[in-house]
Parts: sequence; C-alpha cells; structure tokens
Amino acid sequence: MLSKSQIKLITSLKQKKYRLQHELFVVEGVKTIKELLQSNLVLHKLYTTETFNIDAKDEILISEADLKRISFLKSPNKALAVFKIPEVKQIDKSKLIVALDDVRDPGNLGTIIRLCDWFGIRDLICSKETVDCFNPKVIQATMGSITRVNISYIDLASFLKDNQTTNYGAFMDGKNVYQTNLLEKGVLVMGNEANGISQEIESVINERVSIPRFGNIRATESLNVATATAVLLSEFKRR
Amino acid sequence: MLSKSQIKLITSLKQKKYRLQHELFVVEGVKTIKELLQSNLVLHKLYTTETFNIDAKDEILISEADLKRISFLKSPNKALAVFKIPEVKQIDKSKLIVALDDVRDPGNLGTIIRLCDWFGIRDLICSKETVDCFNPKVIQATMGSITRVNISYIDLASFLKDNQTTNYGAFMDGKNVYQTNLLEKGVLVMGNEANGISQEIESVINERVSIPRFGNIRATESLNVATATAVLLSEFKRR
Repeated sequence: MLSKSQIKLITSLKQKKYRLQHELFVVEGVKTIKELLQSNLVLHKLYTTETFNIDAKDEILISEADLKRISFLKSPNKALAVFKIPEVKQIDKSKLIVALDDVRDPGNLGTIIRLCDWFGIRDLICSKETVDCFNPKVIQATMGSITRVNISYIDLASFLKDNQTTNYGAFMDGKNVYQTNLLEKGVLVMGNEANGISQEIESVINERVSIPRFGNIRATESLNVATATAVLLSEFKRR
Repeated sequence: MLSKSQIKLITSLKQKKYRLQHELFVVEGVKTIKELLQSNLVLHKLYTTETFNIDAKDEILISEADLKRISFLKSPNKALAVFKIPEVKQIDKSKLIVALDDVRDPGNLGTIIRLCDWFGIRDLICSKETVDCFNPKVIQATMGSITRVNISYIDLASFLKDNQTTNYGAFMDGKNVYQTNLLEKGVLVMGNEANGISQEIESVINERVSIPRFGNIRATESLNVATATAVLLSEFKRR
C-alpha cells in the first residue's frame, strides 16, 4: 500500500524545484531500473509490482493500480524507482567537453547524454536554461547513460571565458568541420533548437564549425541538435 | 464552416489505410505548410484560421474551435493542410541509397528523412513494416524534407538480393566504419530499434559496419538508429 505522503512526494518529483529540494528523481521501467541498481547511484525507494529481490527495506510491492497513480507514463512498466541525485564531480578540462547553450527538448538532451556516453565524453556542461537532466523524459531517453556522464549546470559564459582550451561552436555558417583541425581537448558548444548559440556565448567561441550540407536543402533549415552532435562527436573521435 | 464529411475524411487520415485509400495526408503548422506549398506537392485543401492568400477554392477559413476538432495535435497551430501523396519515382542506383529494415518509431523515421535531405540522399527505401512516412508524427518531424527525398516501400530482401552495388549494414559488431572503404554508391541498411537488422536481410549484406564505442558503455546498449544514421552518412559523405 502506498501512503498519501509517498504519493505526494513521488508526484512532486515531476517538477524540477521539488527534485532539487528533495535531491531525488524518478526512473521507470524494469530494464532501466535494473541497470541503475548496478550503478553507483543510491536508491531511495523502489515501488514495484514484482519483486527485484533486493533489500526488503528498499522495496515496496504495490498493485498495478497504485503504480498507475504514481507513474509519469501513460503505460506504466511494472516498476518505478526513486533515486538520490548524485553529487556532481569537478569538471575535467584535460579532455573534450560538450556544452549545451539552452537546449530545451528533453528528448534531445537524453540523446546527447547517450552520445556523450558512447563517445567517451566524461563531462557535459549545461547552461542554467538547459532542460534539467533529471526531468523524467530525459531519464527515459538516456537508457542508463545518465550514470556515466558527469552533468554540471553552470554559468556557461563565465566558464567559456575562463577556459584555456579551444571553445568550438556549432554554427550554420562555420568552417567545414571535415577540414578543421580538431584537438583532443576543448569544449564543443551546441546551441538552442530554435535560435542556435546565443550572442553572449558566440563572443567567446574560438572556432566556429559547421557540418556541410550536401543536399539541395533550404538555408533556413538545420540538422536537429542531437544529430548534429552525433556527427561532430564522431569527427572529434574518429581515427 | 466544416462539413461532417470533411471532418470524417480528415480524421480518417490518421490511419494508414485511409491515407492509402484517399491518397492524401495531413500537415500541420504554418511554417511547414508554407514550405510545402512552395514544393511540387499538390494541395488538396487548406483549413486555416488566417488566410494564406492562395487560390480561394483551395483555402477554407475556419474557427479555432473547428481547427481543434480536426487537428491531430494537442496545441493546434493555426492551420491544417491536406496534400496529395506524391507519386514515388524510380530508385536511382547510381548513388548512395539508405534502406530501413523495420524502423518503427515515427520520430526516428522523421529524423532519418531530414538526414537524407541534408546529406543529399535522393532515395530512402523502407521495408513494408517500417512506419509509414505519411504518418502525422513523421511529417511533424521531417520539417519539409519529405518533399525532397524519394521514399519507396518495397520488399527489401528482394531488392538487396538483386542489387549489384554493395549492401552495407549497420551492426554492433561490424568493421570499424572509420577504417572501411566506403564507396560512392551502394545501399546503407539500418535496422529496427530493438532488434537491429533481421536475419533475412543480414544474409544479403556484403559489408558489416560499426561505429566504435569510445566510452565505457555496456555491450547491450547501442546508439539510437537516427544518431547512428547521422554518423554513418557523415562518414560516407565527408571529404
């Protein structure tokens, strides 16, 4: 059985301010939860319709109906876990870092976190206006990668201003990335879905890069920010 | 004012069988509609709350309330257009072709269509089980690219069997794509989100390629099919 206070706590975690206040976030689905249980994340409580055979004090068996009451999904998937938000580690400037300037779409952020994980990017830094990485839709899209990428929300302009390595920025009219010398360390900045990189950030970019367009596409269109990140990370890492 | 038969026709176009029967599909949003009006697509009818200043016989001014009745979106965006499904052109085997083996997610197909457009891929061929490209969610994700890529639904296994150029396939355990000689013509096959390329298709692949993993990711995970397509198309086209 679920208590009223448990329901209230869990449903409050849909909102960023309550996630920050309680330092907790929600993960749904058996596969993702199992993966996160094996990571260094700390479980707060697991609400499930079938036992995971973990420490009984952490697991609360509930009915399908109760799961439906707390789930953020249209079709709940057997279990919902509440984890503690991990501590953010210090940023390692000796390697390539990915930075996001106000990426707003949770699916895009989730995909970019998976890409960082795949391409061995340890640090993802986000402007304060970037969507929260513990947003349930981001968590659904990351498939466990969230535990392997260190994500910091910072004053991006200050960080880039102080940065001693190259600040690369993705622009529509930058230099052909295939013909650019890409260093092993630096920061690759990706912009907002609608507006690209903001003027303030643009002023601290050292190298503007662009993925050339091969088709007969209109100049007003661009690649989606997640697919552009995929291509650019591949260029930085290929050998 | 909208007639009952108009409402019935438009709402039926949510379903593939009615799209095929009427040879019509729906596009929403002012920006995308304006772009498609400038393409070679043939407009059937435009239902809009504000005039587009096009031929009066094609445009029907409706109220916000009426738009809400016919829209497939939660927040309708001023206009809904019904276009004729264009004729599929013959496949051009002299260039690189992208093939999809049962890609099911509309967002992934939409993103892949945009990528084909960006990277100058003229032909996208899809297995019969791949999600329909005139599905409203695909159309929302393509941003107009749908008019510039020739999309054919075919018996993919037969096509690949008869193909005289190289059939490339994306696999988890293929050859490092960065070290593979990629030809200017051929077919690049991308598999289903959960199961990858099917056994039948695998048997007619000549070159298995893979995007190396740089991070410490678990072997069971893969890149999303759309981001993998982005990286592979970039590799084929980069110079």
